[in-house]
Amino acid sequence: MKATVYVTIKENVLDPQGTAVQGALHTMGFAEVGSVRIGKYLELELDTNDKAEAEVQLKAMCEKLLANTVVEDYRFELEG
Amino acid sequence: MKATVYVTIKENVLDPQGTAVQGALHTMGFAEVGSVRIGKYLELELDTNDKAEAEVQLKAMCEKLLANTVVEDYRFELEG
Repeated sequence: MKATVYVTIKENVLDPQGTAVQGALHTMGFAEVGSVRIGKYLELELDTNDKAEAEVQLKAMCEKLLANTVVEDYRFELEG
Repeated sequence: MKATVYVTIKENVLDPQGTAVQGALHTMGFAEVGSVRIGKYLELELDTNDKAEAEVQLKAMCEKLLANTVVEDYRFELEG
């Protein structure tokens, strides 16, 4: 079973990496770029066919390791 | 117009960050985790309503700054 996890910085938390990329894009002439937010994108292969069990495990992984839930949100998709 | 960009490491390129996360998950008891690949996820706000123009601009941004096309792939979605 394939899982895709998206970890994003919470709406009201500053994203200095995004601001830096926005500045670089402006400098390069892409004036139409407004806000930029940068997150993480993870693809995991899970050795199980039980979707409910996979969801429980993924939630635990996100809470404990993949996302810092104080400043980050996460969501995931399961397929296969 | 809102753009979402996904930058992933190419299939045949090593992903040491993913390997480290996989190892950490195993150590924490998530034995069912197979391969882990880590990429970037960007949300950009574009100040234009011309979808064709936005696609051209986004492609240029990805090629020039957002992705290292030697070792990374990218794809993007446009909405709004």
